[in-house]
Formats: sequence, C-alpha cells, structure tokens
Amino acid sequence: MKVKIINFQTEAEVVVIHPEKDDPSSFRSNLATLRSDFKQRLVRVIKAPLVAENELGLGDKLAKTMGVVDGNDIVLTGRKKPQALPVIMKKYDHKKWTSDDMRIIVDDINNGNLSDLEMAAFTLTMQYESLDTDETEHLTKAFTIHGETIEFNEPVYDKHSIGGIPGNKVSLLIVPIIAAAGLLIPKTSSRAITSPSGTADTFEVLANVKFSAEEIQEIAPKTRGMLVWGGQLNLAPVDSEIITRVERPLSLDPESVIIASILSKKLSTGVKHMVLDMPTGAETKMPSRKQAQDLSMLFVEIGRRVGIQIECAITYADQIVGHSAGPALEAREALNTLMGNGPRSVLEKSVELSGILFEMAGIAQRGQGAVMAMEIVQSGKALTKFREIIGAQGGDPNVTPESIEVGKYQSVFKAPKDGYIAYISNNQLKSIAAALGCPADKKSGVILHRKIGEFVKEGDVIMELFASREGALDHAIQIATTKSPFRQEGMVLERIGSGSIDLGRKLIADE
Amino acid sequence: MKVKIINFQTEAEVVVIHPEKDDPSSFRSNLATLRSDFKQRLVRVIKAPLVAENELGLGDKLAKTMGVVDGNDIVLTGRKKPQALPVIMKKYDHKKWTSDDMRIIVDDINNGNLSDLEMAAFTLTMQYESLDTDETEHLTKAFTIHGETIEFNEPVYDKHSIGGIPGNKVSLLIVPIIAAAGLLIPKTSSRAITSPSGTADTFEVLANVKFSAEEIQEIAPKTRGMLVWGGQLNLAPVDSEIITRVERPLSLDPESVIIASILSKKLSTGVKHMVLDMPTGAETKMPSRKQAQDLSMLFVEIGRRVGIQIECAITYADQIVGHSAGPALEAREALNTLMGNGPRSVLEKSVELSGILFEMAGIAQRGQGAVMAMEIVQSGKALTKFREIIGAQGGDPNVTPESIEVGKYQSVFKAPKDGYIAYISNNQLKSIAAALGCPADKKSGVILHRKIGEFVKEGDVIMELFASREGALDHAIQIATTKSPFRQEGMVLERIGSGSIDLGRKLIADE
Repeated sequence: MKVKIINFQTEAEVVVIHPEKDDPSSFRSNLATLRSDFKQRLVRVIKAPLVAENELGLGDKLAKTMGVVDGNDIVLTGRKKPQALPVIMKKYDHKKWTSDDMRIIVDDINNGNLSDLEMAAFTLTMQYESLDTDETEHLTKAFTIHGETIEFNEPVYDKHSIGGIPGNKVSLLIVPIIAAAGLLIPKTSSRAITSPSGTADTFEVLANVKFSAEEIQEIAPKTRGMLVWGGQLNLAPVDSEIITRVERPLSLDPESVIIASILSKKLSTGVKHMVLDMPTGAETKMPSRKQAQDLSMLFVEIGRRVGIQIECAITYADQIVGHSAGPALEAREALNTLMGNGPRSVLEKSVELSGILFEMAGIAQRGQGAVMAMEIVQSGKALTKFREIIGAQGGDPNVTPESIEVGKYQSVFKAPKDGYIAYISNNQLKSIAAALGCPADKKSGVILHRKIGEFVKEGDVIMELFASREGALDHAIQIATTKSPFRQEGMVLERIGSGSIDLGRKLIADE
Repeated sequence: MKVKIINFQTEAEVVVIHPEKDDPSSFRSNLATLRSDFKQRLVRVIKAPLVAENELGLGDKLAKTMGVVDGNDIVLTGRKKPQALPVIMKKYDHKKWTSDDMRIIVDDINNGNLSDLEMAAFTLTMQYESLDTDETEHLTKAFTIHGETIEFNEPVYDKHSIGGIPGNKVSLLIVPIIAAAGLLIPKTSSRAITSPSGTADTFEVLANVKFSAEEIQEIAPKTRGMLVWGGQLNLAPVDSEIITRVERPLSLDPESVIIASILSKKLSTGVKHMVLDMPTGAETKMPSRKQAQDLSMLFVEIGRRVGIQIECAITYADQIVGHSAGPALEAREALNTLMGNGPRSVLEKSVELSGILFEMAGIAQRGQGAVMAMEIVQSGKALTKFREIIGAQGGDPNVTPESIEVGKYQSVFKAPKDGYIAYISNNQLKSIAAALGCPADKKSGVILHRKIGEFVKEGDVIMELFASREGALDHAIQIATTKSPFRQEGMVLERIGSGSIDLGRKLIADE
C-alpha cells in the first residue's frame, strides 16, 4: 500500500484503511503488523473513509517512527503470534530460559512484535521468578545483539552508579581524575528520571553532552575522558522498551533487568573495568546493606562471565552527597570541589571510587588508589583535565563557579529551634527539587547548608531554594514544611571486588 | 461534549476530538476515561478534523457499548490512576490482599478502569503468588458484588464440571434425573471455547437456551430443571474481563480465578448444594490425581465459607465420555442413553454424580444415591422429565434420536491392523472436531466406535467424521492421521466431600 499522511495526532499507534478493505488485525487484540523498509511496529487498525483503497493512513508521528513519507510503500499484515510467547510461557511451569530463549524474546521486543500484555507477562515473570545467574547472563548478552557499538583500541574504564541518591555529582570529578592519570574513560550517563539531576543534566550546564558514536571515538582518545548523554546513542536499546512500557507504569524493577541493562550498554561501549557505586541507605533503591551485597556479588559474577571486571562500592546514602541538588548548583559544587573549595563528602567519595579504578588498572597498589587520586586533585591536574574536557565538548574551559547561573527566585529556610540534625529525607528533598523545576529547569535546585549530626541553633540557615519561576518557588515552599541536613563521614562503607571479595574491610574515613 | 457517530470501524476503543482541543489522555498510555450515563471505559484519543470542537467522535461499536446516540452528552476526562494499582503492587512485596483490597481491584475492573497492562499485573500476580484460602474467599465475594442475581424461595441444586474432557454430555441426563426427584436444578452452562461442544451448545440442538433471569425464575419452579446458557445472563461478570483480556491471550489459568469464577456465579443463582465434576486424566486440565485432590479441597473449603455445600467427584477422563463429540451427535447420544440405548460410561457417570446430589439432599442414604438415580432412569421418569424440559424451553418434546440432523459429509476410519486400543488423545480428538466445524456448526462432530482397552481387527470401523461442508471434512481427514478408542469402567474414581472428606473411598464400578 501507499503511505498517506493524514491529520491524525495521537500517542496511540493507529493506521487507517479504507472501509471496504479487509482488516488484517487480530480479532481479540486489534493489532496488526506495520512494516516499512526501516521499521516494524504493532499498530491498531481503523476503517474510515479518509484514504483510498490502495492507501494506508498514518499520522505524522507514526510516519516519522516508520521513516516514511507520502507515497512510500508500506505493508500491513495480520499479526503473527510472536515466537516469544510460548517461550515466555515456559516460566509458568518454573522452567529455565536458555540463551536461545532469551534471544527469541529480545528479538521480538526489538522488532516491535510484543503487545503490552506480552511485555507485561515477560517483565512480571522476572519480578516473581527471579532469574538465576545463567539466565541473567543470557539476558545481558541478548541485549547487546541490538543497537550501536563504540569501539576503541584500548581498554575502557568506567564508573557507574545504580542511582537513587540526590546530589551524586561525583562523576564530574571521577572522569577528570581517571583521565588525568591517562586511563580512557568516555563515560556515558543518563538524564534524571525522578532525581533532581542526572550526570548528563549536570554536565550539560557546562558543555554539550550530545555526541555521535563517531565523535566519541574521535574525541575521547585525545582527552582520555568524556561526559556524554547515553540516551542520544542507540546502545543496547531493548531495555528501554521494557522500562518505558512496563516497568515504569507498573513500578516494577526486576534485578535481572537492572543488571542486564547496565552491563549490555557497557559491553556496547567496550568497557573492560568498572567501579560500580551502590548508594545504600534509607529512602534509596538499596535500603539494606544485605540487599546491596547480594546485588553486588551478582554484578561481579555476571561481569566476569561477559568480560567486564567489576568492583562494587557500597556507599553511604542516608543523605545527599555534598550540599546541592539541581543541575546548575551541582555543576557549581563539582567545580568548586575540584578547585579545593568543595564539601568533604563529594571529594572523598570521588577520590575513593577513582582509587578503586586505579587499583583495578594496576597503576596503584591495593589501598593506595585513593591517595593517588587525592594527589591528582590537590595538584590541580584534575581541574585542568576537567577544563580540557569542557572545552573539547564545546563548553567554556574558563568557567568559574560564580559564572554558573542559578534561579533568581530564592527562599531561605531557618532552623525553628536548637538541636542536632538526626535525619534527612531523600524523598522529601526530591519532591521539593521537582517542584522547583528539576531537572528540566537547569537553574532550579536546593542547597542543604547543614547535614545529619550537625548541631544547629534556632534561626541558622539550613536550606536555600532556587527557581526560575515564582510559581515554582511558591509551590516548593508549600511542600517544604519539614526539612533537615546531616552527618559527614567517609562515604565508602564497604568494597566488594572480583577475585578477592573482602566484605569485612571498611573504608570509613575520619570526619 | 456531544456524541457524534462517525464512520469508524475498529475493535480498538478510540475517540476523536477536534485538533484544537486539549488531549486529556495520559502521555505514556494514551488512555483517557470516557463516561456516559450508563458506562465508563478507557479509550485512546485521536485528534482529527472529523468533529467540531464541542463534539466527540465515536464509532458505531463504541457508541453501542456506551449506550449513546448522536447528540447525547458524554464526558472525556484524564485518566485517574486507578486505586487498584497500588493495591496490586502490594503483592510485589508478598503481602496479602484483604477483602477491601479485592473489592477495590474488582470494582476497578468492573468500571473499566484498568489498562491491559494493569490487568496483566493482577492476573500474573495470581499465577505466580498463589492466593491463600482467605484471599480466594475475598475474590469470590468481590466477584458477586457486580451483576445480576436469580432468586428462588427454595434451595438450588447444581452440577458443574471444570471441563477439559470432550464428549461430557452428562448434564443433559443429570438435570432431568435430579428434577424428576423433585429437587430444583435450574442449571446454567457455558458454550465451548476449545472443546467440541459445551452443554449449552449441545442442549441448543434440542431447545432454546437463552432465557432472562425473570423467565428462569418463572419456568424452573414448574419443571424443577432447566438447561440454559449462562453467557446470556449477566452473572458475576467481572471474571470474563480477566479471562478474555488476559488469561486467554497469555494462556494463563490461575486456580483462584477458576474457583472464584465458578462459585461467584453459583452464589448469584442461589445455589446451595453442588456436585463438582473434576475430569482427571492425560491431556485434560487436571493431569494428576494429586492436583485434582488439592483443587477439590480448596473448592470444598471456599464453598463452605461462602455458603455452598460442595462435593467434588474426581472422574476418569483419559478418554472421551461416551462415543460422540459435537453438538448434534452428543444431544443424540444423551437422548439415546435416557431411552436405554446409550453407552455405559455416559449412564454411569450421570447416575453416580446424580446420586451424590441425592445423598447431599438427604433423600438417599450415603451409598444409595446412585441406585436411586439409576431407578429414575430405568423407570423412564428421567426421559419424561427431559422431554418436559425440552418442551418448556420451546423445543419439540417428541424429538427422536433419528430426527436429530447430523452433517451430510461423512467419512469412516478403519483400523489399519489388529490390536488393543491403548490410548486416545483428547487433544487430537479436539483438533479434528474443530476442523469439522465444532462447536459453531451443530451438525459437525466425531463418533469414536472403539475405546481404550478394546481389541480391534484390521478393517474394523473405529471412527466416523461428520461435517456440513466438504472443505471442513477434507481438512479434518487431513488432520486425522492417528486415532484411537478406549476402556470403559466406572467413571468416578474418588469422591471428596465437605465435612467427611473421604479420600480413601473408591467408587470404581465394575466393567
């Protein structure tokens, strides 16, 4: 049939056929398969006198997805029962998925062959019948079959965080520290979903974060480090279908998908050695140490099987890292820290995670990596490298903390009485930041002036809010009825590595 | 807004708004809530210049569902997150559903508030996290809140089969046997989904099976028995949403839904005493005796809690009951059996299940029910009652087996060699019957002339096929490459009752 673009605006993927044509969609699900030269999607079929018999009506948006314009050839056929369905159903009888099974399922997801219902069956199955180590390995490998790859002629180092803690701007320090030592760390990051700012959101305040695979392959070997937005690239993209279509609407987050999502993207970018930050604490993804340990060991083992050396750092996350949350405020705090004026928690966490990578690379002895990283910061080499990376990514290498603009609508919160800060709610902080406009409004955010364990006197400033719109500030002030700051200590509580897993070792720095 | 019926034919539930109007549907799911005076549905929204700004475009089919015509008022609003969603999500943490939780979920299903994804989350949760007895009781009770009820001034008796075995025409005998003894048995039945014929399909060959609740309340007390199609009534209808939208497409069949579906409909029709047929054997829903025993005990217990006395009969189902499969052939065989010319398996199973009901009613001593039922058949009272019921339901009370028309395209299969019949595949039989046209084509079907354990000689007729269309017969012949018949024995293997559960007692009749 010939494509006819019609005035149809909708999120739903529907096509229009002439009323006299046979509707090929299945009776129950009303889904049919639409196929262009570029793409295949499941669509719903409507008969309406808006097109001729040889035409198929598509809205703008769907036409764009399919990569077609008016008059192009396009094929609409009855939906074949996806091969993945009987494979998914094996799990009803508690059978294991083989590597072939995983490939079949992931291929069908990639080809747009699964309905919402079938995607839900796959994902809920993983929620209830946890995958074993073999199956998680198969899932990881199946994810890597699709999408772009970025290749380098040398081993790639990486730092990744499973997220869940606000204010975690340490990647902005770790990348220049690692790169300054000569290791290659072209780090891809995500944008924030529920947190005040993702690494990509924060670094975008200082430089461009959107680069093609070719550009990264060209720039990174020179600067040794980059901070780019991974969403722009098409790295092992199948997980995003699962996350967007099922996990988010149903608040699901099966462990096997977490592991496979992360590691498949690392495989696609040539990562060989990775330190994995596991923020653990109240109101985070990992409330208990035990949970973080179990997930760490699984990561280490799956990493080993797919060829990535991983060490996990279970980090303190009962409260914000540093003092600021929000893109501009966090960029400013990261820069300040590299310049020697930042909070101890940001510096320590960055240095300790960098140190683990140095030890993995064999350029520092076990126990000496953090010392080496600290020297790189204190000598100014990390700052120089940071400015070089900003420049290479199209930003102003001479940026100063003061020149980073923040929201002009501001409000100060004071302690209502004397007393120690005993607790800070991560979720409360996130709600306030979201109300202020984070992460979309770069200039919005929160500064917590005091943290857990500090003694404050009535009237001391404990929190400042920043917004670009007065209404957003008012809304945030309304939400901010209870606040609090918190205790500083060494951020790495425990380290779990490949080979010598050393659960007992504590890396708690002195105050 | 005002309804405007537009030329839109689709199974999908979509509405059209003017391109300048705000689309109230949610960004991710594209669903909005459509509300008329009668009904509420989730719909997808399309913007197209097919309606004016104050109009909402609906296809014929959706307009009918909503009970609206051109110019009626109708409301389209943003979809509120269903209350049921957080309740469903409780199960991710293995929590129990309370009776209030179940009501919230079932109400949201009934009100058309759940997306396919959310329905799948609910159903898959029950598949993986089996509900306990309390939760199954809550689900059963929640199902009964919605839909029609049929009331009588006296206790209602009932026979139900969980299905899965072809040729199970015994309800056509049991209803007249029970009614002839004066007990009230206004039996509702379903149509076949995958089997050659459901009780409603079979009895429809002889009489009308579509009656309103009022008609049943009027006719049944006079005849004491009826055989009607339950699908016509609106009895505890919520299960059908779950079954049609999720269970069937995903081949799921969680036990708790089986129990709640059956018992809620029984509660809605005033059933107080029920014998439950659990066909158990190779290629049935219950392949193992243990499984059937466990499900039986759960049925008995949930029945006790909701006020229905249940006895379960685990029945032999390694092969077809009687010799025929298909509506007309089964109606003919049932009539023949009541006239004294039927297969022993049909007679025995009918008499034994009827006997259990007589014992439950206290009109026969324990162990004597089947004798009483056999007397009712042999005296001709059951036949007289059967003809009376046929007449009361608008059929010909003088119908003869020969006058029941069967398909004129027929084919005979002969044994290819001498030997005992060792096995008959229920699934193979069902495929042949489906190819012949069952259950839609009443005249189509299969007769198995020999059954498991019989010795046949090369050239003996073992199977006959009947179809109304030559193409269907050809197709069925093609499928029928292997066939077989089977051993006759007393059909009830075991009986599990309320109060005195008597697992040891066997009711295997002599050959």
